[in-house]
Amino acid sequence: MNIVLLSGGSGKRLWPLSNSIRSKQFVKFFKTDDDAYESMVQRVFRQIKTVDPTAVVTIATSKAQVSAIHNQLGDKVGVSVEPCRRDTFPAIALVSAYLADVQGIDPEEPVVVCPVDPYVENDYFEMLKLLSDQAGKGEANLVLMGIEPTYPSEKYGYIIPRSADQISFVDTFKEKPTANVAEEYISRGALWNGGVFAYKLKYVLDKAHELIDFTDYEDLYAKYETLNRISFDYAVVENEKKIQVMRFAGQWKDLGTWNTLTEAMTEPVIGKGILNDNCQGVNIINEMDVPVLAMGLHDVVISASPEGILVSDKEQSSYIKPYVDSIVQQVMFAEKSWGSYQVIDVEDRSLTIKVTLNAGHSMNYHSHRNRDEVWVVISGTGRTIVDGMEQSVQVGDVVTMGAGCRHTVIADTELKLIEVQLGEAISVEDKQKHEL
Amino acid sequence: MNIVLLSGGSGKRLWPLSNSIRSKQFVKFFKTDDDAYESMVQRVFRQIKTVDPTAVVTIATSKAQVSAIHNQLGDKVGVSVEPCRRDTFPAIALVSAYLADVQGIDPEEPVVVCPVDPYVENDYFEMLKLLSDQAGKGEANLVLMGIEPTYPSEKYGYIIPRSADQISFVDTFKEKPTANVAEEYISRGALWNGGVFAYKLKYVLDKAHELIDFTDYEDLYAKYETLNRISFDYAVVENEKKIQVMRFAGQWKDLGTWNTLTEAMTEPVIGKGILNDNCQGVNIINEMDVPVLAMGLHDVVISASPEGILVSDKEQSSYIKPYVDSIVQQVMFAEKSWGSYQVIDVEDRSLTIKVTLNAGHSMNYHSHRNRDEVWVVISGTGRTIVDGMEQSVQVGDVVTMGAGCRHTVIADTELKLIEVQLGEAISVEDKQKHEL
Repeated sequence: MNIVLLSGGSGKRLWPLSNSIRSKQFVKFFKTDDDAYESMVQRVFRQIKTVDPTAVVTIATSKAQVSAIHNQLGDKVGVSVEPCRRDTFPAIALVSAYLADVQGIDPEEPVVVCPVDPYVENDYFEMLKLLSDQAGKGEANLVLMGIEPTYPSEKYGYIIPRSADQISFVDTFKEKPTANVAEEYISRGALWNGGVFAYKLKYVLDKAHELIDFTDYEDLYAKYETLNRISFDYAVVENEKKIQVMRFAGQWKDLGTWNTLTEAMTEPVIGKGILNDNCQGVNIINEMDVPVLAMGLHDVVISASPEGILVSDKEQSSYIKPYVDSIVQQVMFAEKSWGSYQVIDVEDRSLTIKVTLNAGHSMNYHSHRNRDEVWVVISGTGRTIVDGMEQSVQVGDVVTMGAGCRHTVIADTELKLIEVQLGEAISVEDKQKHEL
Repeated sequence: MNIVLLSGGSGKRLWPLSNSIRSKQFVKFFKTDDDAYESMVQRVFRQIKTVDPTAVVTIATSKAQVSAIHNQLGDKVGVSVEPCRRDTFPAIALVSAYLADVQGIDPEEPVVVCPVDPYVENDYFEMLKLLSDQAGKGEANLVLMGIEPTYPSEKYGYIIPRSADQISFVDTFKEKPTANVAEEYISRGALWNGGVFAYKLKYVLDKAHELIDFTDYEDLYAKYETLNRISFDYAVVENEKKIQVMRFAGQWKDLGTWNTLTEAMTEPVIGKGILNDNCQGVNIINEMDVPVLAMGLHDVVISASPEGILVSDKEQSSYIKPYVDSIVQQVMFAEKSWGSYQVIDVEDRSLTIKVTLNAGHSMNYHSHRNRDEVWVVISGTGRTIVDGMEQSVQVGDVVTMGAGCRHTVIADTELKLIEVQLGEAISVEDKQKHEL
């Protein structure tokens, strides 16, 4: 199976665990069998590989997420990077060209496109294989997954099939209705549109060439910024007569808010936390080193991260976005392709961070115009290169770098260091990359 | 007026702002007229000086609090330090000897003893002056403050006076009664015992010499550890016939729990915090750099500090102690006589702290057996002395100190530094002080 996972959105609705640079799909919420925690991306990837060990998985995403994807999945997935946001049709055209030209997939092969963050069991991915097989047959140009509704939701789009068969041609689509209208749709056999569709690679490539003037993936990537914003629904689905839908009746949850996310937690506390006996329906998700103590609360979610602390009635947590938008502060935590960093102290003219490099990884060779830096190695071993000179470093070693000095560090084992940044107007923008 | 403030207790009931080394009286809860915040100790000291600018204020306390007292009040108060805890009679004997022998107060002068943390207005301290004057007259050996009860509390001891006059001899004392019994006491004119009493210094010195074999303050201090634990009530009050009580009808609050403390807050949020419109009766007290967002909560207190995060129904917050006792972790923040420090990162074999030295202050000259340290100066100027060698330091300077190396830093301006501690089993106990 060739599967494309669409990974979008900055996801402020799960603040403080998600923020402008960390999306919810990378937050490690889910306990695995060996008592570790995995993110939505890791969970979905693991499930796909369980169901189909030979699946070719490609993630279509923006630049901001590439580091986190490599950090969490290594090189096990292909990554098709949108140079900028241009809605779903250009995005699906780009990843389709990537599959054909970079991954070398035969245009006659089927491809399944699926969101990166459904909270589902393995049967969902078994269903994706059936979708892929059905698309391969060529009876229809698009094969969608239709989810059996469990209530007349106003949040989802609806697919009205021609018949109640397991596989049916689609009669029409309906956008988010009121509850009453949704009930009427459901009585006619309507299904939720879960955003999953399968097609023969050639089908979308042909559509792309019809609407966009490009030769191959490289060319499309190069001119991506000039493309019009247009949705896949508008450009393709609405004009396509031959669309089938396959019914899926398994578990399917959209964990987009704290309210729905906490429902999926198998235990009430992640991280250091204490609930007293008078707490009911309380969840703690704590990424900080210090404990959270909750007493006498009902239906409340508490989440703490280096970005901030949320304490919300679960129902109210859906309305978080404007409040988070009002919070202006620098990013306090980021995953990078080489590891991660966390801001541990902020002063007017200094910033202190803890840097963790994964074994075998290194930062870009870079310099800063407006700040000096000091590194103190606190664990592991590695090598620094400072203005071209390489030196081994170990615990206790101190490296001082004036503004303009070119530097990097290579981790031989996992390497942690405290980095003190000193200067006026310290900014992540002040970074010049250099060739080594 | 000679006034002794009794400053005791570690105060876990206001965790995470108070902890094993920071007592509630040092937490800056109260907004002042110039928009700064002051602690209970600072508030009480300011009120005393407003009412009586010439008052001689002495704080009787334990070693653990001396640094915080000097940090918050400078040298404006005398401090009588108990070498160890020995209940109230030895403590009051010791501070009385301190007043006579160290402060040189005439034994014929009256002294008022008062808790360090009443939440009161200036009229309370006016009343202390009257108590002092009354004690000076010598009609009674002890003059107590009796607080007019506002409800039949089960939390306080009661004083039954002989008459309803403003000043009356005491008939008897009653310990914490049930509400019904308390109502009966109140109908007989009973008053709450607020723990305030005045006496001629000589009176307590004589009692002390009767019960303890000592010559002067130095001698008493030296043998303090050998003294029996005995309360002032048991040793003195219960045997004394000549006790007067003066009625006080002003505001008097005991801010011992989050529930009562939040009632005294003039605004709902201290520090970075946002309450949405659906919050009612919610208080945020946030000492961290990152924001707290509260949504849809009722009658909840949220407090965050480097020690941890509390989210509690206000009513339930009185029952916090056993939960806090169960939390085992190192101290993350401490006030010192020279400034303060905060732990900003904890790893297995390293600890990173931010140190703030007040201008003109310095640490003890010290060394560590089992850890190396690195200092990075992030603001201010000063001088370091390392193994006897003094050097000026400014922003960006790095000082490395191996185990055994003797060191201190003297702040010329306010000086901040990041200190990275490296070693196995890092402990605050591993500190050897040296003469300079």
